[in-house]
Amino acid sequence: MTAPERELPFYQPVGDECELFEAAWRQQLPVLIKGPTGCGKTRFVAHMAARLNLPLITVSCHDDLTAADLVGRHLIGDGATYWVDGPLTRAVREGGICYLDEVVEARKDTTVVLHPLTDDRRVLPIERTGELLQAPKNFMLVVSYNPGYQHVLKSLKPSTRQRFVALAFDFPRPEVETAVLKQESGLDDARIAQLVTLAGQLRRLAGYDLEEGVSTRLLVYAAKLMAAGMAPRRACRTALVEPLSDDTDTVAALAAIVDAQFAA
Amino acid sequence: MTAPERELPFYQPVGDECELFEAAWRQQLPVLIKGPTGCGKTRFVAHMAARLNLPLITVSCHDDLTAADLVGRHLIGDGATYWVDGPLTRAVREGGICYLDEVVEARKDTTVVLHPLTDDRRVLPIERTGELLQAPKNFMLVVSYNPGYQHVLKSLKPSTRQRFVALAFDFPRPEVETAVLKQESGLDDARIAQLVTLAGQLRRLAGYDLEEGVSTRLLVYAAKLMAAGMAPRRACRTALVEPLSDDTDTVAALAAIVDAQFAA
Amino acid sequence: MTAPERELPFYQPVGDECELFEAAWRQQLPVLIKGPTGCGKTRFVAHMAARLNLPLITVSCHDDLTAADLVGRHLIGDGATYWVDGPLTRAVREGGICYLDEVVEARKDTTVVLHPLTDDRRVLPIERTGELLQAPKNFMLVVSYNPGYQHVLKSLKPSTRQRFVALAFDFPRPEVETAVLKQESGLDDARIAQLVTLAGQLRRLAGYDLEEGVSTRLLVYAAKLMAAGMAPRRACRTALVEPLSDDTDTVAALAAIVDAQFAA
Amino acid sequence: MTAPERELPFYQPVGDECELFEAAWRQQLPVLIKGPTGCGKTRFVAHMAARLNLPLITVSCHDDLTAADLVGRHLIGDGATYWVDGPLTRAVREGGICYLDEVVEARKDTTVVLHPLTDDRRVLPIERTGELLQAPKNFMLVVSYNPGYQHVLKSLKPSTRQRFVALAFDFPRPEVETAVLKQESGLDDARIAQLVTLAGQLRRLAGYDLEEGVSTRLLVYAAKLMAAGMAPRRACRTALVEPLSDDTDTVAALAAIVDAQFAA
Amino acid sequence: MTAPERELPFYQPVGDECELFEAAWRQQLPVLIKGPTGCGKTRFVAHMAARLNLPLITVSCHDDLTAADLVGRHLIGDGATYWVDGPLTRAVREGGICYLDEVVEARKDTTVVLHPLTDDRRVLPIERTGELLQAPKNFMLVVSYNPGYQHVLKSLKPSTRQRFVALAFDFPRPEVETAVLKQESGLDDARIAQLVTLAGQLRRLAGYDLEEGVSTRLLVYAAKLMAAGMAPRRACRTALVEPLSDDTDTVAALAAIVDAQFAA
Amino acid sequence: MTAPERELPFYQPVGDECELFEAAWRQQLPVLIKGPTGCGKTRFVAHMAARLNLPLITVSCHDDLTAADLVGRHLIGDGATYWVDGPLTRAVREGGICYLDEVVEARKDTTVVLHPLTDDRRVLPIERTGELLQAPKNFMLVVSYNPGYQHVLKSLKPSTRQRFVALAFDFPRPEVETAVLKQESGLDDARIAQLVTLAGQLRRLAGYDLEEGVSTRLLVYAAKLMAAGMAPRRACRTALVEPLSDDTDTVAALAAIVDAQFAA
Repeated sequence: MTAPERELPFYQPVGDECELFEAAWRQQLPVLIKGPTGCGKTRFVAHMAARLNLPLITVSCHDDLTAADLVGRHLIGDGATYWVDGPLTRAVREGGICYLDEVVEARKDTTVVLHPLTDDRRVLPIERTGELLQAPKNFMLVVSYNPGYQHVLKSLKPSTRQRFVALAFDFPRPEVETAVLKQESGLDDARIAQLVTLAGQLRRLAGYDLEEGVSTRLLVYAAKLMAAGMAPRRACRTALVEPLSDDTDTVAALAAIVDAQFAA
Repeated sequence: MTAPERELPFYQPVGDECELFEAAWRQQLPVLIKGPTGCGKTRFVAHMAARLNLPLITVSCHDDLTAADLVGRHLIGDGATYWVDGPLTRAVREGGICYLDEVVEARKDTTVVLHPLTDDRRVLPIERTGELLQAPKNFMLVVSYNPGYQHVLKSLKPSTRQRFVALAFDFPRPEVETAVLKQESGLDDARIAQLVTLAGQLRRLAGYDLEEGVSTRLLVYAAKLMAAGMAPRRACRTALVEPLSDDTDTVAALAAIVDAQFAA
Repeated sequence: MTAPERELPFYQPVGDECELFEAAWRQQLPVLIKGPTGCGKTRFVAHMAARLNLPLITVSCHDDLTAADLVGRHLIGDGATYWVDGPLTRAVREGGICYLDEVVEARKDTTVVLHPLTDDRRVLPIERTGELLQAPKNFMLVVSYNPGYQHVLKSLKPSTRQRFVALAFDFPRPEVETAVLKQESGLDDARIAQLVTLAGQLRRLAGYDLEEGVSTRLLVYAAKLMAAGMAPRRACRTALVEPLSDDTDTVAALAAIVDAQFAA
Repeated sequence: MTAPERELPFYQPVGDECELFEAAWRQQLPVLIKGPTGCGKTRFVAHMAARLNLPLITVSCHDDLTAADLVGRHLIGDGATYWVDGPLTRAVREGGICYLDEVVEARKDTTVVLHPLTDDRRVLPIERTGELLQAPKNFMLVVSYNPGYQHVLKSLKPSTRQRFVALAFDFPRPEVETAVLKQESGLDDARIAQLVTLAGQLRRLAGYDLEEGVSTRLLVYAAKLMAAGMAPRRACRTALVEPLSDDTDTVAALAAIVDAQFAA
Repeated sequence: MTAPERELPFYQPVGDECELFEAAWRQQLPVLIKGPTGCGKTRFVAHMAARLNLPLITVSCHDDLTAADLVGRHLIGDGATYWVDGPLTRAVREGGICYLDEVVEARKDTTVVLHPLTDDRRVLPIERTGELLQAPKNFMLVVSYNPGYQHVLKSLKPSTRQRFVALAFDFPRPEVETAVLKQESGLDDARIAQLVTLAGQLRRLAGYDLEEGVSTRLLVYAAKLMAAGMAPRRACRTALVEPLSDDTDTVAALAAIVDAQFAA
Repeated sequence: MTAPERELPFYQPVGDECELFEAAWRQQLPVLIKGPTGCGKTRFVAHMAARLNLPLITVSCHDDLTAADLVGRHLIGDGATYWVDGPLTRAVREGGICYLDEVVEARKDTTVVLHPLTDDRRVLPIERTGELLQAPKNFMLVVSYNPGYQHVLKSLKPSTRQRFVALAFDFPRPEVETAVLKQESGLDDARIAQLVTLAGQLRRLAGYDLEEGVSTRLLVYAAKLMAAGMAPRRACRTALVEPLSDDTDTVAALAAIVDAQFAA
């Protein structure tokens, strides 16, 4: 879907990811972004699209996403079939960034559609209509996924992976995360410092008791609830602890860490 | 489905869940409610919707619920296709609470539709029509599930979970459950006290011989049958014991507990 | 399907099941009937429907029964789609008993449709048309299943079970079964006594060599063949032994029991 | 499909199966026929249908046979949908025998359609049209299957089995098989005697090296090839040995038995 | 598909397979041809069809071939549905050989369609239209498969196998294969002798390092490349070695055998 | 899709693959190309098509590619169905190369469609329309796949493999790869030499820590990023290391090799 006009979305760079993205853009190379849940991948792409003044079309991938959902399909109207472009085809026709979020979730036939767009041909064949679209210079393909909890059955084939330059994202460093929380919630500096410290403590548990570390997004939720006047322990219980686990022992352990942080 | 106008549904609060829900509502955060069968999750959401004066659209999720069931689909009429909004799209267009009950039962492509609605974008892209709906301020997404008997294959992905603040529900405390039974059945206080005591005894078996503890709903059924004149042991056998298990030994054990309670 | 008008179907009560069913009916509680194959569950429901003067709509559940089969679907006619109610929707609109036979065989999306009808809301949301039907006072939902050979993958979820009061059926006691055989076949008393004794002997093998005990229905078949002049051993071989097993040793063992009973 | 008019098909009775079938017919009981491949089940049903002067509608069941294939479906024509009866519905409407060959191969939803037709109601509910057909007196349901190579996943549920009286078929006794071969091939008596002896030898291997014993049908094929002048060993190799196995050792063992029989 | 008129296809008989096929044809018996890849099964059927002056309709079977693909289906045109015969139905209506190549690959519902055509009835019921076609005298059904690499899940059921007389094919004897290579490629006798010797060496590896022996077809390819001037080693590497295996060690072993043969 | 007119695509031959391809073309033999990801298979076919002055139709195969996607299907328009050729049918009708990329990914029914085109008949039967197309002399079928990471369930059946002559591709030799990088990126010779050396080091890890060796395509990406001014280590990290693995230890090991190469 083409996002409506909006100002440049706030994004706090972590390293040289903006420059790398721009270099790939100038060389017309497709980009793969790897990283954990809620670390800012989608926000980064929105930021870069605005910065490069490109339309952005985002597709959240899932088990049932077919090639036809990306490329287009025939519909019936007034007794005849007519063709409707999918989001990928629109991006190729009109230029801009086509962003496939969580691409490993998609069905295999979806990723194979990307192949002719990601080699030197840069074409999109539309088998159903017989068209062969040549991507314009200002078309760019970006895909993302989370390597932390890939299924064995759900990973990109080498023949797909080796068509992208790849950027690895991680949770932001404390000073970056502090800036993000301040920008998004308006909470006072002392509470933000406590939240950022807490985040580091909780993330160290990932892989042991937790499937994944707490995301920056959930920290923003906790900060917002605290900024709205809710007691820190209750806000963190609701925004950080309960969303992370259903296991009674794990929940108790996480709650204890929260309580210790906000005991003072 | 938009519920028809009705008075504020009775709900007996257990803790600060009403305040937490309101805070999430004011901060435009999506809410996840976790808890066992029949503990009042659906009633709580109905109560909060009435209290906040919001339309409520409830969807019971299941194995075959697709993204199209939520978002909408094309139908054919008068020789042409026309679009019909699904319940989620109607809630986004018109505002109000969209409540997805037992969300883990839904297919994966259903939950991914929720992603753009549950980050800072708060948008609903409708791929089939090319629309990108911006959720209004008075739109709120609420989902629930029962962590007690999740399938391994059926759990929320971290990338979905970490988009919600979460409230954990449990069976109500005795004094709360007593108030609920009184309100719903009109049974006398002595019998209600016996039923509430019995509930505690039966729930202690959950996880051992029983998949789940007896719900407040079934206690209401037993109270109603007793209020209608049925003998307590027979009412509890029918409303509490047989619905909980098909295993002969378990049924006998539960019946013995019932008989002991109503022996006096 | 609404059964055509017919006289009160013969039903020989075993205990207080008729009174319990009536109490549930008066309290507007849904009923779950558990019991082995051919013990009279369907006959009981037909009897109660006639006794309470209610229309009866029966649905035999199976693997491919979908929610749309129960609720309704759009058909195409004269170039436009029109809606056709399913049996559940007709029962909710017009009142009466909707009886889902062998409900565990149905797909999961079928049972979830029942949830809003089986809590205090008593509503049937029809997602495809946007309707929300309020069940009338004289609507009652009855489901049945056979706990004896449930698949692991095929059982009612606790969140569904805990919405019903439950009646457990078993094979009828000898005096009851004698009355049933007499009514259905007109066979003489001595032969019926032998058949009822034989039934007890064969049922003791269930769980060991037999998946399930011999049903009252098969006894009626044997009695009918004998009443029509067939030799008892041959009638029992055809109506009781061969339908129960394909295993050569088991068939021989069952035949020996039959032969012993009818040796005198 | 209704078979076109033809003379009474030849059938050589093995025991009292014709009388049992007639008794079931008079008592309006459904019949289940069990037996190995090619032993004459289908021929027996054709014979009985002609003898009782009943139309015969045969359906060969398979993995993809749905309830709609039996009951009927809506087709589109002239811009509107119209209903077309399936073979089961035609048999119920018009009377006659509906014969489901290899019923265990059918999908589960197919067999559940038979339930209301096989209890005392004798009705066929057609959910899609809302009709409830009462079976006429001259309607009879017959099903068959081969217990020898049932899949674990493919067997009749007890709730289905216990709705039929059952006849067990086996390969015909030598004198019966001799009569069949004579009638079908016109081969001379000495060769037929050799073939019948050979059949007994080959059938003793079933369950060890062979999945199933050689059928009467294949014996007829061998007799026909020999009657047409082909050498006995070559005819038996082609008609009896190669159709039974692909395993080199098994084929050699079977061929040795054949060669020994026709060495003299 | 009906093959266009063409001269009698070259076929080099190996034994009495032509006589056996003709005998089956005269006795109206269906034929099953078993044998490895590329040994000439399809060519043999084409040859026999031409020799018996019968139209030939060939269907290559696969996973997704349905009964409707064989029998026919309704299509929509001018606002109404009309029926289109499938290849099997056309062969039954018009006479000729219907040849199902690799029949074990087809779905089960496909093979069950063949049952009424392969017993004494010789009829094709078309359930969707209610027709019951009687096969004419000059209709013959031929099926083939390769027993060498059958899947466990993909084999003919005994109830299907025991409806055919069966011919077992193997790779042709050296003198036959020599004649075939000469006819097809025009290569000189010395080179052909080397290729036939090489074929024997490579086939001895089948079952050990190779899934299947080298086919006569690949030998023809190698002969054609050599006749076109390519060096023998390079031609055999391309036409015999690389098509047989992807395993590095196996490829090296095969290449060594090739090099030894063409060293002189 | 027919590629638009373009100049002869650059291709650096590795051995006699161009001559072999031409010989197969002259003998009308179908060609199978085996080789790792990104080694130039697709470029080679494009080069040969241009050199032989043949139209090229490329199809990227995937899990959901059906025979109908290749052959064609009926669409509905103006109230009637009309036939639309698929890419394979167009190539057979009009002549040229039909190239099926990653053919093992396709469904089985797709490859069986190729059988009649790849034996001496060279025909394409279109079952749905009853047509039987004879391929013209200038039609050629080319398929490719990557034997390095075939699934067990995804390999070509011998009956399909033995219909092709096969060319095995590998990564290009250093001098060839150097020429390719120079042509594609314009990077200076010293840096290209370092990249080619690095490629050899990284490829030696394939099979151990890496699923597949680094492709020539990724080397071109790295060269392009370096030519655009990016630091070599950062360019290689983004274009060579991160696309190859998500495993932390493997990524560190690969990065160490990169750093060593560009330390000087």
